[in-house]
Amino acid sequence: MNVDFGNALASEAVTGVSEGSLERLDDRVRRAHDRIESGIGDREFGYASLALPEDTDPGAIRSALEGFDPEAVLTVGIGGSALGAETITAALGRSEHYSLDNVDPERTRELLEKLPLESTLLNVVSRSGTTAETLANFLVVRKAMAEAGVEWTDRTVVTTGDSGPLRALADEHDLPVCPVPDGVPGRFSALSAVGLVPAAALGCDIEALLAGGAVGQAALAPSLFECPAYAYGAVAYALETRGATTNAFVPYAEALEPLAEWFAQLWAESLGKDGLGQTPVRALGATDQHSQLQLYRAGRKDKLVTLLRPREREDEPIPETDIESLSYLGGSTLGGLLDAEFEATEASLAAAGQANVRLEVDRLDAESVGRLLYELEAACVLVGELAGVEAFTQPAVEWGKRAARGLLGGGDFEEATAVEEKTVRRVE
Amino acid sequence: MNVDFGNALASEAVTGVSEGSLERLDDRVRRAHDRIESGIGDREFGYASLALPEDTDPGAIRSALEGFDPEAVLTVGIGGSALGAETITAALGRSEHYSLDNVDPERTRELLEKLPLESTLLNVVSRSGTTAETLANFLVVRKAMAEAGVEWTDRTVVTTGDSGPLRALADEHDLPVCPVPDGVPGRFSALSAVGLVPAAALGCDIEALLAGGAVGQAALAPSLFECPAYAYGAVAYALETRGATTNAFVPYAEALEPLAEWFAQLWAESLGKDGLGQTPVRALGATDQHSQLQLYRAGRKDKLVTLLRPREREDEPIPETDIESLSYLGGSTLGGLLDAEFEATEASLAAAGQANVRLEVDRLDAESVGRLLYELEAACVLVGELAGVEAFTQPAVEWGKRAARGLLGGGDFEEATAVEEKTVRRVE
Repeated sequence: MNVDFGNALASEAVTGVSEGSLERLDDRVRRAHDRIESGIGDREFGYASLALPEDTDPGAIRSALEGFDPEAVLTVGIGGSALGAETITAALGRSEHYSLDNVDPERTRELLEKLPLESTLLNVVSRSGTTAETLANFLVVRKAMAEAGVEWTDRTVVTTGDSGPLRALADEHDLPVCPVPDGVPGRFSALSAVGLVPAAALGCDIEALLAGGAVGQAALAPSLFECPAYAYGAVAYALETRGATTNAFVPYAEALEPLAEWFAQLWAESLGKDGLGQTPVRALGATDQHSQLQLYRAGRKDKLVTLLRPREREDEPIPETDIESLSYLGGSTLGGLLDAEFEATEASLAAAGQANVRLEVDRLDAESVGRLLYELEAACVLVGELAGVEAFTQPAVEWGKRAARGLLGGGDFEEATAVEEKTVRRVE
Repeated sequence: MNVDFGNALASEAVTGVSEGSLERLDDRVRRAHDRIESGIGDREFGYASLALPEDTDPGAIRSALEGFDPEAVLTVGIGGSALGAETITAALGRSEHYSLDNVDPERTRELLEKLPLESTLLNVVSRSGTTAETLANFLVVRKAMAEAGVEWTDRTVVTTGDSGPLRALADEHDLPVCPVPDGVPGRFSALSAVGLVPAAALGCDIEALLAGGAVGQAALAPSLFECPAYAYGAVAYALETRGATTNAFVPYAEALEPLAEWFAQLWAESLGKDGLGQTPVRALGATDQHSQLQLYRAGRKDKLVTLLRPREREDEPIPETDIESLSYLGGSTLGGLLDAEFEATEASLAAAGQANVRLEVDRLDAESVGRLLYELEAACVLVGELAGVEAFTQPAVEWGKRAARGLLGGGDFEEATAVEEKTVRRVE
């Protein structure tokens, strides 16, 4: 990706960082880079994520999918087990990919009624094989397939760890299985089978996605001034320490809306620790100019606004019109309008002293998307190093999982008791 | 709606508010209520929004739609001209409503290829009739209809102000027109024709939506302890002054995902002024437990987490299974699992001292949804009164609009010059 942090400098933005500070920070970036490189080399827990472009075997994914030529893919997974795959297929225009990444009964029913089950590939993803939401949805989908006369074992691929109930089930029914790579947390797994199976099943060039990741990896360098991923991470970190505790992530492309969700998980779950971490806010340009821009310009200066766009798009002309006050639109294009809005918003934030960073990719093709995912991950890992937080774990999530399991009668957990003791202060 | 702010009290949360403080704040709530009531009575600018349940004429909307029985509705509008309508139709399960609320060429093309244009109702919404994004999309859709041999004048309804190019066009072609009510900003217009036309066209009970709004209006009372809307608004305000500068809005229902977007506009554009205003973060339960919860529990205590759910749902049983470690799920339901996750997450935030508020509606029917929208608007207006900001304007958005217009050659604007002078600091 291409990074332009001109509008995040102290000369432009209230919470901005000076060139001198960035130069001093660059010493720490160099040390962090050494740490990251050695972690990658040794395939240490978490750091192994940044080795996926070399470690993922696209051939194995294609083998697992041999014989499938689905009309649609239904991914059953949640969090990192769904978001990477959704992000990649959406960015590459594969609208035939659907996800059950929630346990909403109405949504589940509606989706199952709509999908052509006899030509849908069911893609079940859970590292442990015990994720309650995923397994509950899997049981519901399996029953719906049976009721529709579809043999589920003929239409299911599983991505899971080496052991657990999902692995056992796959072995029992001889289902194709893709591995979840060791040492790679879910939110960093987009460039493994976890993120690539639906893309491959729908005809995307997963080799090019991985090649893009490899370009991102090759671009890692011991200076933020030489490496786009680190430039973005270092500036985000510097701004957070100066009060930008929110990171509004605003792609200017509908196909990148899931990327904003993926980014929100990456940033929140990796960096939200020890009382630190920017709150990611997902937004969408140009739509959210009519929703969030008032706040970003005139509210607290506690934000970094990250603006992202592809430099090239397949465009659509705006027809000429005889309506005089609109004639300036005729002859332009929808993409031209969107780009004008992008630049106008960026300048409007700068004029208000609101820090912002511009990220650009050449276009939304497999290589650019693979590189973008890799570089945003590397940026996140760098922030973790600079902030001194452990980016690869998510300990705070466990409490709620135990409480929910206890409430459902899945064992004796003291957290479930705490739920019963809620302080109630009700107004109806 | 039902409000429970037990987990936002000082006894439970780091940024919480004490009962004593709330009692003192209640004096100001009483005065704000008087101001709001007199504003409603006089139909003052902005306050008129809270009179919509009485002022909107559902008969006029139905008349404008006479003769239409569309398979799908395509709304062309942006910001408040689309979000209310999207929110209502989604909450009531009308998936045949589509929006063009962005100027993304690929998304526009994809949608136009997918829609049955000959049986689609085109719903164009812009108060001024000059909104660049809306008019550009309208011109593209009109051309697509012509190319498909569909007479656009037979399939278009317009919602606009008393004058402007869209009104002129409607008059010229004798299109049915619904009015944008006076004194009602876009983000407060869900319970007017702006929000109700698609719902009515798709068979929703708009009278019940308005009746729900009227119930919300009747429930306004001069004490936060007697009025759910004010309870939520006052607690949100009190928490913001204690450091909760973010409001994460988390509905536990996929059908309420657009509501979170609508809320984000309502909150950001109304309250993001004078260096104040909570940053709304839209999220979705239970999915985002696997994405944002780590941050909400272990990050900065600068958040209010608003949890929202319907008390009743059309549920879906989870099939029994012979997989032993999952047997606890069998016999439960997807909705039961979702509710367990809701309560577990709420308790898990409380256990971490993270302030949260529970909002509940009885179920997702027209009356409950109408009341919910009204009460969230009233909550927002109350926060504006308490914070001393002007909730009904959005002055900071104008700069960017002028810049974009200048860039597109629609006139001479100094803002466009500022765009050209951007400070560039690039890493590629």
